[in-house]
Amino acid sequence: MFQEIDQIAPVEIINGYKAKFIHAATMTMAFWEVTAGAAMPVHHHENEQISQVLEGKFELTVGNERKVLEPGLVAIIPSNVAHGGVAITDCKLLDIFSPVRGDYKV
Amino acid sequence: MFQEIDQIAPVEIINGYKAKFIHAATMTMAFWEVTAGAAMPVHHHENEQISQVLEGKFELTVGNERKVLEPGLVAIIPSNVAHGGVAITDCKLLDIFSPVRGDYKV
Repeated sequence: MFQEIDQIAPVEIINGYKAKFIHAATMTMAFWEVTAGAAMPVHHHENEQISQVLEGKFELTVGNERKVLEPGLVAIIPSNVAHGGVAITDCKLLDIFSPVRGDYKV
Repeated sequence: MFQEIDQIAPVEIINGYKAKFIHAATMTMAFWEVTAGAAMPVHHHENEQISQVLEGKFELTVGNERKVLEPGLVAIIPSNVAHGGVAITDCKLLDIFSPVRGDYKV
């Protein structure tokens, strides 16, 4: 019921994107460390996604809308809406998905 | 699809607990500002809940387990498990619920 983020082993999902995952029953949290310049190709999934930048700047495109995420701005990505982005600086991101991201269970 | 936390009006839910809510389709986020000493009575709800302290210290009891939450420690509160707590210092908390907390829609 309690999980130390520091004790989770990171997994490099794609080049420049390392994540620590917490899988609950209905949600998955992903704490990302992303290298400046690393791109997340446009993709989509049935899981609804909420994204925040904890540190740094990340340019996120959701559907046709592009924004620079910084701390204090929250992105809500509906189910199956295409999204992708690029890290403007080294950054730390927090994504939360519902339902659980079964494809991220390792 | 993008929401500035600063632009959300806070709501005082119980004494010492002010929240800014973001309701997505399957999840609710609650950004809390809690006054030192304020107590959240033990309660439960069907929504699964993930809780983090962003700043400060919060003593959280989940079922029979009591922990001091500080940044870096994540609590996963299963559906219908009793929980409550008290703010040890002024603190900022982030709760995420799934499904949406309809009772927090104002």
